[in-house]
Amino acid sequence: MVNKRTNLRVGILGCGNVGAALLRLLDSDSHRILARTGIGLEVSKVLVRDLDKSRNVSLTSANLSDILTNDSQAIVSNPDIDIVVELIGGVEPAYSLIETALKAGKPVVTANKELLSRKALKLVNISIENKVELLYEAAVGGAIPLVRALRESLAGERIEKVIGIVNGTTNYILTRMAEEGLDFEYALSQAQSLGFAEADPTADIEGYDAAGKAAILASIVFGQNITFDDVYREGIGKVRSQDVDIATKLGYVIKLLVIAEKLGDSRVAVRVHPAMLDKQHPLASVRGAFNAVFIEGASAGELMLYGQGAGGVPTASAVLGDLIDAGHHLQSGSFPSPDLTGLRKEAHIHPMETLSSQFYLNIDVLDQPGVLALVAKVFGDNKVSIRLMEQMGLGSEARLVFLTHKAVEKDVTATLSALESLDVVRRIGGVIRILGEEIV
Amino acid sequence: MVNKRTNLRVGILGCGNVGAALLRLLDSDSHRILARTGIGLEVSKVLVRDLDKSRNVSLTSANLSDILTNDSQAIVSNPDIDIVVELIGGVEPAYSLIETALKAGKPVVTANKELLSRKALKLVNISIENKVELLYEAAVGGAIPLVRALRESLAGERIEKVIGIVNGTTNYILTRMAEEGLDFEYALSQAQSLGFAEADPTADIEGYDAAGKAAILASIVFGQNITFDDVYREGIGKVRSQDVDIATKLGYVIKLLVIAEKLGDSRVAVRVHPAMLDKQHPLASVRGAFNAVFIEGASAGELMLYGQGAGGVPTASAVLGDLIDAGHHLQSGSFPSPDLTGLRKEAHIHPMETLSSQFYLNIDVLDQPGVLALVAKVFGDNKVSIRLMEQMGLGSEARLVFLTHKAVEKDVTATLSALESLDVVRRIGGVIRILGEEIV
Repeated sequence: MVNKRTNLRVGILGCGNVGAALLRLLDSDSHRILARTGIGLEVSKVLVRDLDKSRNVSLTSANLSDILTNDSQAIVSNPDIDIVVELIGGVEPAYSLIETALKAGKPVVTANKELLSRKALKLVNISIENKVELLYEAAVGGAIPLVRALRESLAGERIEKVIGIVNGTTNYILTRMAEEGLDFEYALSQAQSLGFAEADPTADIEGYDAAGKAAILASIVFGQNITFDDVYREGIGKVRSQDVDIATKLGYVIKLLVIAEKLGDSRVAVRVHPAMLDKQHPLASVRGAFNAVFIEGASAGELMLYGQGAGGVPTASAVLGDLIDAGHHLQSGSFPSPDLTGLRKEAHIHPMETLSSQFYLNIDVLDQPGVLALVAKVFGDNKVSIRLMEQMGLGSEARLVFLTHKAVEKDVTATLSALESLDVVRRIGGVIRILGEEIV
Repeated sequence: MVNKRTNLRVGILGCGNVGAALLRLLDSDSHRILARTGIGLEVSKVLVRDLDKSRNVSLTSANLSDILTNDSQAIVSNPDIDIVVELIGGVEPAYSLIETALKAGKPVVTANKELLSRKALKLVNISIENKVELLYEAAVGGAIPLVRALRESLAGERIEKVIGIVNGTTNYILTRMAEEGLDFEYALSQAQSLGFAEADPTADIEGYDAAGKAAILASIVFGQNITFDDVYREGIGKVRSQDVDIATKLGYVIKLLVIAEKLGDSRVAVRVHPAMLDKQHPLASVRGAFNAVFIEGASAGELMLYGQGAGGVPTASAVLGDLIDAGHHLQSGSFPSPDLTGLRKEAHIHPMETLSSQFYLNIDVLDQPGVLALVAKVFGDNKVSIRLMEQMGLGSEARLVFLTHKAVEKDVTATLSALESLDVVRRIGGVIRILGEEIV
């Protein structure tokens, strides 16, 4: 069925940032990789939209223009291609191309988090039916060897919780806000001018990118078909420098976190939101555009995997690892993805409104006698218990900072809307969850 | 050749800390593991020295006394056993038992760093000749999914350098010295009473344990047959609380580090010694008994893998991951360890005396005029350039603290012996390398 070739012919769909880095890497390193791993990787075709666009890729092993094509079928349906790498991104045409390649018996390596977070189950089913491998190390955590660790090394581990920083753009912004006192807008503009954020930063800032990765991680870890729509999502657009300052004062760091946890039975909760975490937590020292995923296993205990989560070259490095793995399996004629069968289980999502967290709340009120009593009554009426309150004068207004004990999401939502309807409340500022067990 | 069984019969050599944890884990979780991975794991026999010793292991799936044996051949030569787990430790009889098992076609999972750091090549050759797998995730970094990441995910990566904290005992001691100002002896006694250090702590304190792990890591990363004897080794026995205090003042943290690096051509340098590292370095925040390995890849960039490096349950978790992996390969009839062939290459070790580092030196001298000039001349005569000097009065003596620019090891050795022969030098205290590029 499968060619036991030493030299595997690779077709690459897409020649953007990652594709170009992969081309250069295979061009410069394929001799070394062959000597080291026994796997030869030779790029046969690269799909691009525009054949005439000038590209900053000079290869020694081939003439770039000879391998470019704008015909996707010349890759996914080409019997002379052994493995397909999908780097187009988005749902279509990526989905259809991967489907065709898998049905044609070609293993597929993809870095496409958006597609996987929406259609992983369908793709995995096609992969299993055709006994052809689908690998996606690069889809979450870039160069961090995370997906393989979860799928293989930790396949037998009872994982209770995964907490991750999986978006470099937001971590870069939050780091500069915390370390240099920048406000959100300026930190974002800095991230944009340094290439850490896109011109339209919505996907990063509002947590869409992180939510897609959260769905993929949670699916692997909990063996359920968890998709993008199952993930609760809040971005960092509302985090202000005053919240960052207060967090620092309290010994916390604000990070945009993915939190995926198993709750009791088989229910899981998967969410993305900014959170304050203790500055001693291993994730707190993840600075700048770096990513890290913190795993709590029943036997393994605490694990953390850290590295570059984005960028052409680091992502190409993860794709290369998958290519070598797929190459080994093609050579040995084996199909080792049984851990994924768990994905076929339906997701049991614990609704966000019934989860509990400690909260930080920052509320501007009129500076009048009796206001605190009025505000405190709203908390009490909604079963939200206050752990710490600090009042700061602001001319005719006062700012109240509250830290709550663990409170149920829907009770906090009710508290906030009741507070908003009070005349003495001018503005509800930061509302940020606090990670970690309560110190009683 | 190989049984395509769903239920794999496991023989375990040794029932100490890790063995007992593995037995409990398989007893409680094997149904869940089967459902999740398709691999059933059933313990058939456990080798112990003393059948009559009382053991704190109660199983639901079997009567412990029925599976205990003191006959090692009843495991390694038993056709009814599919996979062997070696948890005896030490070189013999572990080596001979693993050899017999591999030759009998049984995959072996081992956590034996001492054996691997001395005889990996022989064992790997037996494994390759017999097309039977040898797995050892638990030998370095305990529960951290490190070995598989290096062997598979990063198989194609050009790794320049690996820096690791791989000994929990010494990291625990150094953490308590730094955070609580304890002296070495008291911190060690605390580690012993809390079970983080053995009654005879030599293997940990003097870096023997770390050196064994360094050899294994460097072999995988650089594809050479690097053994325990190739590793330069210095322990933490000479690190005093005054060195720790000065390090803190200078913005450094002292850690016992494994440093394995590629130098130019195919030469590698592998060493274990205490080192000062910048407190912003990701490894600096690895506290207590935790381990972490920091990897610098040409494409992947900086990676760090963090977790529990020792302990019965975390180590059993890593063994379990290997058992599932071996089970998958037995089921699919494949033998995927080609990356290890690199091991057959001879080691090219860069001699320690020609390496360069920055140094911290702490020297007690008589408090007399002209002493500093005398001492400084010794540095200059030996081509060691001083970056920073601080003098502290101590009654009739003075303490001189020097930080040097990068200096060659043999020049520093010559400097130290010349200083020792000076009458005005009372004592050479801490001599600790400083990690990292020089800030010029």
